[in-house]
Amino acid sequence: MNAPGPAFPALQPDEVFDWLDAEAARRSEAGLVRRLRARGPSTDELDLAGNDYLGLARDKRVAGAAAAASLRWGAGSTGSRLVTGSTELHAELEHELARFCGTQAALVFSSGFTANLGAVTALSGAESAIVTDKYIHASLIEGCRLSRADIAAVGHADPAAIAHALATRRKQRALVVTDSVFSVDGDVAPLRELSEACRTHGAALLVDDAHGFGVLGDGGRGAVHDAGLAGEPDVVTTITLSKALGAQGGAVLGPRRVIRHLVDTARSFVFDTALAPGSAAAALAALGVLREEPGLAERVLTVAGSLAHGLREAGLQVSGSGGAVVSVRAPGPGEAQAWAGACAEHGIRVGCFRPPSVPDGVSRLRLTARADLAESDVDRAVKVVAELAPPGARG
Amino acid sequence: MNAPGPAFPALQPDEVFDWLDAEAARRSEAGLVRRLRARGPSTDELDLAGNDYLGLARDKRVAGAAAAASLRWGAGSTGSRLVTGSTELHAELEHELARFCGTQAALVFSSGFTANLGAVTALSGAESAIVTDKYIHASLIEGCRLSRADIAAVGHADPAAIAHALATRRKQRALVVTDSVFSVDGDVAPLRELSEACRTHGAALLVDDAHGFGVLGDGGRGAVHDAGLAGEPDVVTTITLSKALGAQGGAVLGPRRVIRHLVDTARSFVFDTALAPGSAAAALAALGVLREEPGLAERVLTVAGSLAHGLREAGLQVSGSGGAVVSVRAPGPGEAQAWAGACAEHGIRVGCFRPPSVPDGVSRLRLTARADLAESDVDRAVKVVAELAPPGARG
Ligand SMILES: Cc1ncc(COP(=O)(O)O)c(C=O)c1O
Ligand SMILES: Cc1ncc(COP(=O)(O)O)c(C=O)c1O
Repeated sequence: MNAPGPAFPALQPDEVFDWLDAEAARRSEAGLVRRLRARGPSTDELDLAGNDYLGLARDKRVAGAAAAASLRWGAGSTGSRLVTGSTELHAELEHELARFCGTQAALVFSSGFTANLGAVTALSGAESAIVTDKYIHASLIEGCRLSRADIAAVGHADPAAIAHALATRRKQRALVVTDSVFSVDGDVAPLRELSEACRTHGAALLVDDAHGFGVLGDGGRGAVHDAGLAGEPDVVTTITLSKALGAQGGAVLGPRRVIRHLVDTARSFVFDTALAPGSAAAALAALGVLREEPGLAERVLTVAGSLAHGLREAGLQVSGSGGAVVSVRAPGPGEAQAWAGACAEHGIRVGCFRPPSVPDGVSRLRLTARADLAESDVDRAVKVVAELAPPGARG
Repeated sequence: MNAPGPAFPALQPDEVFDWLDAEAARRSEAGLVRRLRARGPSTDELDLAGNDYLGLARDKRVAGAAAAASLRWGAGSTGSRLVTGSTELHAELEHELARFCGTQAALVFSSGFTANLGAVTALSGAESAIVTDKYIHASLIEGCRLSRADIAAVGHADPAAIAHALATRRKQRALVVTDSVFSVDGDVAPLRELSEACRTHGAALLVDDAHGFGVLGDGGRGAVHDAGLAGEPDVVTTITLSKALGAQGGAVLGPRRVIRHLVDTARSFVFDTALAPGSAAAALAALGVLREEPGLAERVLTVAGSLAHGLREAGLQVSGSGGAVVSVRAPGPGEAQAWAGACAEHGIRVGCFRPPSVPDGVSRLRLTARADLAESDVDRAVKVVAELAPPGARG
């Protein structure tokens, strides 16, 4: 057989990626170019940008556990969980996560991202319908895109809209997918109402508790536990080990048969190297700290409350309440970036979220509370953020 | 507005996941149920199942670097690479990876899986065509499914088929996607021919060098380097830090404008917590070992060659040549599992790959060479695997 000739005018090898330059120019004009800033091991800045809500990433017990496990077990896990990658550390972490959160079982993934991909795809499929809040995290959206299910993304935090979409679906099998604490805005999903809608319509509920776990609920057991839904037979929770637990990795928590199903079928579990032993050990140690110091979770909420209150008092447009994330609206992406930059120059590191990282197109500063912040830190942060607010930030 | 009533007969909460039991029963009948085996920190078994090709996961320099970095930088990176997650360790690792492999730039992801998702999706899109070898790794397939591109998956290791698909594509922008060393069978892709097909047809080439990096090429610089394609303006390589480097994580290597584009647009980069400092440091240390001991890579190939030779001599159906992976056909999934189990009882741990983890539906044992195996280890492994071969394994 003779191969047909080129379908399109030939390009030189160095022209093949010319389209990237055009796209870069477009992003640059829109003020949407990112620069990676490599930070050092320690800093004088006040960090209100990270997700280390309990201040455990550098806790000696947690970092020490990571170090000890790396030496004892090796730097990597050497294979998929199904081959050589499952160690006793992974098993113990799964046991302890399930016990802490009150679910039958848990399964550890290499990240929260891959945990979400695995949970959404394995619990749906072409013969199913997925109904989501339209502001769910990107990793859940990717899971939906991979699922081949019928997808309906409805208005934010609207259980009636979820119920309506469930009632008008065309496939019997249905999964409702939501964040617990929405990652950008920090607001908390109406989990009980969502569960009621699911039960009325025979759907399962999948909650991404990445920002609720370690922060909300009794001793930090998370938003699902707080809503009385932990251990329910129709509820599945995903968490990440990279935020409140200060480590890396993710997990799915739920009924034993769900976990077994994931082991056999979740492609982001089967075809991925297991979490490094050091990260598994760090998460396990952090969980131990959380058990020993149940007040840590409450402390984050107190700090978040003061932060939100202070910024609101200063006339800023603050959203997020109930969790550790406090979000402040900016007039536009350029202003948001300049504002965050000015805060950094004054020693306060805040997150700057612009399109496409914001579900609603609104640029904002994103501040995160940490259990180890003092009231004086909060006061200083509020003062700096308020004083540097650009025109238009007060709405 | 009144919400419509349920579309389908109501289910009790504990019935919602009944379909999982039916699927589990089906897998069980087909002999496709997986069980997680939690291993201890050390073992008397001979491990021919992991992907720690250079034996570096437990090397003191590598594990020690992971431990030291965890203590110095913390157990976790605390945020996305775009917020607080980029440390000097990540930047140094990127610099060293690019330098070692001879590319302009590199970008570190939390896993090889997410690196592949990011590279495929960001370098394609709805206005593009992707042409792949049909046996590419699951993470690349997921990337293709997410890409919205026109997808053509053609016959295995067939540059003419790739060229044909490129010639008959309907979108100008095109990306060819392949593994370098195919993960299950261990055979090496015809990278030079694939590059020629790409150049004839104005397409970019994306190579997943997960199993080639650290093993093939000058001092372990990988299959892309070996094919003379490193640093080419139309070639992008993904690698994982979890196999030859004994750590965790992944990276994309290529032209600077590709890397910049990924920073701005790859969703599995932007919306994922950065790799843990310990894993980044471990990969960096392993790269240092590879530089100091360039003979390591060659040693793996020698071991793999003896392993393949011995098994072939014993009449088994062996595939894979050129890399560290040696694959042996089994008559069926049940036989493969029993065979691998019997080997383990005799102290030899081998991988057992069954559907859906095999692209061609063929169950097999998968053995991996390691630089630190002695000839006597290889002889023992060959003897045990051959003696325990089930009827039908010899074809
Ligand atoms: C809501 C939510 N889900 C999932 C993730 C992914 O978790 P990870 O970063 O551990 O991969 C994140 C953040 O990164 C998140 O904010
Ligand atoms: C060919 C190939 N690509 C990518 C991956 C994913 O890499 P990682 O396990 O580091 O996520 C793997 C293995 O897991 C692989 O075999």
